[in-house]
Amino acid sequence: MSPAINIAIIGAGIVGSAFINQLRSVSSLFDFNVIYLAKSKSALISYDFKPLNLANWKADLDNSSLNPLTVEELLKFLKNSPLPAILVDNTSSADVAFAYPQFVSNGISVATPNKKAFSGDLNLWSEIFKASGEPNGGLVYHEATVGAGLPVISTINDLVNTGDKIEKIEGIFSGSLSYIFNRFSTTKPNDIKFSEIVSKAKELGYTEPDPRDDLSGLDVARKVTILARLSGFNVKSPDSFPVDSLVPQELETLETSDEFLSRLHEFDSQVGHLKEQAASEGKVLRFVGTVDFPNNKVSVGFGKYDASHPFASLQGSDNVISIKTERYQNPLIIQGAGAGAEVTAAGVLADVIKIGQRISKL
Amino acid sequence: MSPAINIAIIGAGIVGSAFINQLRSVSSLFDFNVIYLAKSKSALISYDFKPLNLANWKADLDNSSLNPLTVEELLKFLKNSPLPAILVDNTSSADVAFAYPQFVSNGISVATPNKKAFSGDLNLWSEIFKASGEPNGGLVYHEATVGAGLPVISTINDLVNTGDKIEKIEGIFSGSLSYIFNRFSTTKPNDIKFSEIVSKAKELGYTEPDPRDDLSGLDVARKVTILARLSGFNVKSPDSFPVDSLVPQELETLETSDEFLSRLHEFDSQVGHLKEQAASEGKVLRFVGTVDFPNNKVSVGFGKYDASHPFASLQGSDNVISIKTERYQNPLIIQGAGAGAEVTAAGVLADVIKIGQRISKL
Repeated sequence: MSPAINIAIIGAGIVGSAFINQLRSVSSLFDFNVIYLAKSKSALISYDFKPLNLANWKADLDNSSLNPLTVEELLKFLKNSPLPAILVDNTSSADVAFAYPQFVSNGISVATPNKKAFSGDLNLWSEIFKASGEPNGGLVYHEATVGAGLPVISTINDLVNTGDKIEKIEGIFSGSLSYIFNRFSTTKPNDIKFSEIVSKAKELGYTEPDPRDDLSGLDVARKVTILARLSGFNVKSPDSFPVDSLVPQELETLETSDEFLSRLHEFDSQVGHLKEQAASEGKVLRFVGTVDFPNNKVSVGFGKYDASHPFASLQGSDNVISIKTERYQNPLIIQGAGAGAEVTAAGVLADVIKIGQRISKL
Repeated sequence: MSPAINIAIIGAGIVGSAFINQLRSVSSLFDFNVIYLAKSKSALISYDFKPLNLANWKADLDNSSLNPLTVEELLKFLKNSPLPAILVDNTSSADVAFAYPQFVSNGISVATPNKKAFSGDLNLWSEIFKASGEPNGGLVYHEATVGAGLPVISTINDLVNTGDKIEKIEGIFSGSLSYIFNRFSTTKPNDIKFSEIVSKAKELGYTEPDPRDDLSGLDVARKVTILARLSGFNVKSPDSFPVDSLVPQELETLETSDEFLSRLHEFDSQVGHLKEQAASEGKVLRFVGTVDFPNNKVSVGFGKYDASHPFASLQGSDNVISIKTERYQNPLIIQGAGAGAEVTAAGVLADVIKIGQRISKL
C-alpha cells in the first residue's frame, strides 16, 4: 500500500469540482485521504481523520448541516492530523490566502490556483516562502496560478534552481484577451471591430461576468507579478508597474457590464488605430505581460509581433510564455490552454502529487 | 543545514563537465556531496564517503591513478553509502544503462540524459520502473533523454498522472535535423540544396561526427520510443516501427563521412522533390516523430506543415513537441534548444534536485 496523505479541500466551484473528480479518479495510485471538504455555506469534516467517502460528495456537501471551519479552526484541525497534510485552496479568497504563512509554518503544505497570496503584497510572498524554507515548514506549490496546467512555474523554478539567469519573460497570460486579440488582429487584415469581439467573447463565456475585469489588465498584472518574483525581480505589488488598461476611462465607472458593452464601440477607433499601425508594419497586435531584466522593467500592455512570431499564430484562447535566459538565447516557449476547469484542476492535482511524493512518510 | 545526499557521477565529457560545474555552483543551496567521479580511464573515489573536494576536479581527475570502478564495484560501493545516493550517468554507455535495475532495486536513484536504457528493449524499461515502484526502490528521472532541459518528460508524466489521455504527440526531436530542415524548407521558397546544408551543419558542429548518425533517424526513433512508452504505448524497441532514413541506401556502407558527404549531392533531387511538393501546397517539409493513439501508430519521417504552424517557424536547431490530449484539444506546445551541453546538464541537475527533495532524510 502506498503511503497516505491527508487532504483538506476548500472550494467546490467549477475548478474545485473538477479537482475532486480528478483526485478521485487517480486516488488508487496515490492514496490520498480527503478529510475536509468545504464550500462557502457547508462542509464535510472527518473529525476522526478517517477518509471521507466521496462517492456522492456533491449531494452530501449540499445536504451537510456542518458549517465550514473558520481559517483558525481549520488550522487547529489540520495541526492534529496524524498524517502529513495538504491544504488545497480552490477558492479565490484573500482570507485563506493571507493565512498560508500560518499553515505552512505549522508543517501543512499548500497547493492552490489562487493568485491572491502570491501576487499581493511582497511581504506576504516573503513570509510564505520563509515559512516553507524552515526545517519543518510545509511545501507550497502554485503551478495553476499562471497558465493553469501549463508547466510555467515549474519550468521557471527549474531554470532558477539550476543557476540559469532569466533575461526576459514575455507572454499572453489571459485566455479572454488571447481570444480577443487573436480574432481582432490577424496576419490577414480584417475589419472586425474591437467592441464586437469583446461582446462575442462574453457571449462564449471566455470573459468574466463583467468583461472589464479582464480588460483592466489587473489579472495579467497579477500573473506577471508572480513570474517576476519567481525570477528574482522583487515586484512590490501588481499596481507598482505600468499596466495598460483596455477599459476607456470614461467607461470605468458605469454600473453594469451591459452599459459598458453598449458604449464600448465609441472607442473602437482608438484600438483600431493601433491595429492598423501594426498591420502597416506587417505585424499583429497582442496584449502581453513582460519582465525585462536588462531594462529593469515589468509591464503589461500592447506588443507588436511579426507574422512568423509564435504569438502571432496563437489559437483560440491559448496562453503562451516565452522565456529568454542565459542558456536559452532562443527563448524557451510554452503554449496551450491557460484557462478552463479541467486543465486548472490538473495543474493543482499535479502539485498535490508532487507534494505527496515529497512529504509522505515511507 | 540542509539534508545531504551522496552523488556518484560517471562521465566527464562536455555534458558531464557542464553538469559538474553547475552542481558546484548550486551546491550551497542543496548540500550535495559528490563521493565518486569517473571518466573512462580514471576516477576520484571517496571510500570514506566524505565529500570530494572539486575545486580542481578536472586536473585531479586527469592525474588520478585510480581506475574507474566496474559497474558491480560501483553498486557495492553505493550500497554502503550512509546517506541516500544518486547515480548520475552522464555517459551514453549501454553497460551502465543495463545495470539501472540493480542500482534502483538497491535503493539508489538514477538521473541521466542517457537514452540507452529507456529506448532499448521494453523488458529493460519494465524492469527499471518495476524496481523503482518497490517500497525501497530508488527514483528514476531522465528529463534530458528527450529535448535536453526542455520540460517534456515531466509534462507528459504530469498529464498521465493526473488522468489525462494522450491522443497524439508530434515533434522535432533532433537539433541537427531541425537546423537542416529549418534552412532547407522555408516559408519563402529557396533553392538551397539538401547536401549543402548537411555539410554546413556538420561544419558548425550541429551533427554527430558522421552525419549519417543523425540522418538515419535512429536518434529520433529512440526519443519517440521513450515518449510513446511514457504515454502508455508499449513500443517494443526503436526498430519496431517505421523510420524514414535520410541516408540513401547506396551511401549507407561508405566507409568515411567525407565520402558520404562528397556523394550526397547525387540524391539532392529526391529530397528536393518532396520539398517542392510541400511548397506547391503552401507548406514546409519537416522531419518529425509521431505517436498517434487513435491510429495506433508510432513513426518517424517527413511531415508537411502550413506556414502558420509552430513547426514551420522553428528557429535554428530548436526542438519542438506538440501534445494533444483529451484536455488539450489545442495541443500543448513546448519549444526551445533541445541539445547543447549547458541545457542538457541543467536538465539532469533539475532531476537531481527533485530526487534530492524526495529522498533526503530530514
